[in-house]
Amino acid sequence: MTETYRSSTLQAPLALDGGGVLTDVTVAYETYGALAPDRSNAILLCHALTGDQFVASAHPVTGKPGWWERMVGPGRPIDTDRYRVVCANVIGSCMGSTGPASLAPDGEPYAMRFPVITIRDMVRGLVGLLDELGIERLHAVVGGSMGGMQALSLAANWPERAGRVLAIATTARHSAQNIAFHEVGRQAIMADPYWCKGDYYAHEERPGAGLAVARMAAHITYLSEDGLTEKFGRRLQDRTEKTFGFDADFQVESYLRYQGSGFTKRFDANSYLYITRAMDYFDLAEEHGGKLAEAFAGSQARFCLVSFDSDWLYPTAESRHVVHALNAAGAPVSFVELSAPFGHDSFLLDVPALDRVVKGFLE
Amino acid sequence: MTETYRSSTLQAPLALDGGGVLTDVTVAYETYGALAPDRSNAILLCHALTGDQFVASAHPVTGKPGWWERMVGPGRPIDTDRYRVVCANVIGSCMGSTGPASLAPDGEPYAMRFPVITIRDMVRGLVGLLDELGIERLHAVVGGSMGGMQALSLAANWPERAGRVLAIATTARHSAQNIAFHEVGRQAIMADPYWCKGDYYAHEERPGAGLAVARMAAHITYLSEDGLTEKFGRRLQDRTEKTFGFDADFQVESYLRYQGSGFTKRFDANSYLYITRAMDYFDLAEEHGGKLAEAFAGSQARFCLVSFDSDWLYPTAESRHVVHALNAAGAPVSFVELSAPFGHDSFLLDVPALDRVVKGFLE
Repeated sequence: MTETYRSSTLQAPLALDGGGVLTDVTVAYETYGALAPDRSNAILLCHALTGDQFVASAHPVTGKPGWWERMVGPGRPIDTDRYRVVCANVIGSCMGSTGPASLAPDGEPYAMRFPVITIRDMVRGLVGLLDELGIERLHAVVGGSMGGMQALSLAANWPERAGRVLAIATTARHSAQNIAFHEVGRQAIMADPYWCKGDYYAHEERPGAGLAVARMAAHITYLSEDGLTEKFGRRLQDRTEKTFGFDADFQVESYLRYQGSGFTKRFDANSYLYITRAMDYFDLAEEHGGKLAEAFAGSQARFCLVSFDSDWLYPTAESRHVVHALNAAGAPVSFVELSAPFGHDSFLLDVPALDRVVKGFLE
Repeated sequence: MTETYRSSTLQAPLALDGGGVLTDVTVAYETYGALAPDRSNAILLCHALTGDQFVASAHPVTGKPGWWERMVGPGRPIDTDRYRVVCANVIGSCMGSTGPASLAPDGEPYAMRFPVITIRDMVRGLVGLLDELGIERLHAVVGGSMGGMQALSLAANWPERAGRVLAIATTARHSAQNIAFHEVGRQAIMADPYWCKGDYYAHEERPGAGLAVARMAAHITYLSEDGLTEKFGRRLQDRTEKTFGFDADFQVESYLRYQGSGFTKRFDANSYLYITRAMDYFDLAEEHGGKLAEAFAGSQARFCLVSFDSDWLYPTAESRHVVHALNAAGAPVSFVELSAPFGHDSFLLDVPALDRVVKGFLE
């Protein structure tokens, strides 16, 4: 797929946390807005688990609008009339950056021979791209969910590269419950007979059923219970009576099935395995001697953390934990818990208060 | 499997909510303690989704102790020196009562020809058993989780049959989130190629992988996030370093896999489909003109509702909703939210305060 998308091949090999080295790494990316002559106005946007570089332009597979068009564009909170926005597909993913579907040096897809990567490895790829693009120092790094993990990882490991760090609806480490939900998804994929231990790229059939189940389970964690109740409740789907069968009688069932099957059209099952693994391994304190404050000891950046009161995937306590560490490290940080009904997905949805926080913090 | 377990074949056919009729229904059951000469000391215990009649005696398949031995036995809160405890496998299940694995009149397993049943249909089977056993009026009906739904359904539809109703960690209707989690489990089973549209009983291979994924997803909902963190946190399983692979590095992964695979040894995948469907259909108010208070209008029983503060599957608000309806119906009801760290599973675990509530309410 690599040739379809705008991308850069990194000159430097990537030395990975797991001990391996990836060479000839491709990082696919999109940019929005012009780079200032002094190169001071670049913002790196980091995407979430199933996101990609198409933050403010149509997705080439689904044709849907960019995933954060409401936030990014001319006159938007992340104003592309003022900032040069760079958004890259993380390594391990499947929208043009090197991942398990890419060809290994032997000419065959990596599949499960792809090395297990970490969030820091993803950021290594992003920093490599910034080097290629000649962007020495970012005005800001911004991300929600897994994108927020990348923003925090960049701040901790490349503290000179970003002046501002905006981490939304995220955490500095995956909890046991977070890991548990991801493990269910991985087991669903691996239980699919079309997964074939990951070697399905030459096959006509893909492990779509397993991937759909993984997506469905994860999707529930992105929404709040109240949000689900308000959106669907116990309403029936295109019928007035229960059918006493196993069709999708309830709207919420129909919605989940749609989410699951739609996802399989644009995402690679092996990428789902690798990226969820990277998130589960994420523990920023562990990388820095077990003390999260140490992770930010050398930081000169300004930080902003945002959480949502209905987010039970990465609840406010996780953001507060990061804020306390930043306080201990003496870093300037603002922190706000926003009220929004959409659960974890609030960062992607219509929450005007978030727009104001983002716009204000970047100025 | 029917012949292995103690059971009764109901004389009367069961007319089901879905419109069908089941004849020659077998209900497998266990009893503990002696029936008083005046037959006034019987307690019906109703089991949860994956439970069975072996409440206080070893499970014949796994050899494990009964699922509520801490609560039921001589001198225990449900004291078998005083009460005759009856616990039956619900219809639709797979421990001896008529379900999808049972033979239909044509001599072949029902499989997906088994009618979709409701919680009320399950209770019809239980009431049929009570008739067979000559138990006109129960001292009490007691259940947790899906067992609590049955207790409430019995109180609403057979108000003369029980003097006390104890419903623990339950709800009067399944929420959108509850339905969503069950739908993930059903999709996982149906995605398993060994499921074969339910016709797997003559096959060597069963849809165990799909059933295990279903169980894993559900199991997360039975535990609290804090409980998971305390029990497992991010601790590694039998290793000191991450392996950078897809083995169960984390204890919580290993635990979930164990829960999933252990479950498949004792449970039938089609039963899982039917019982989760019954739970999703459960809406006690809907059965009674949309007003929950109407469900209890004719009740002469005393009620006790118990919830747990860490239960996010059926949170306290769901019990409170039932209590308000009982208040509106003028029924005597006590209600307590207990503090326990184990999430929904608290009703099965070591919560001494629950013991005291149960013992006190039954006296």
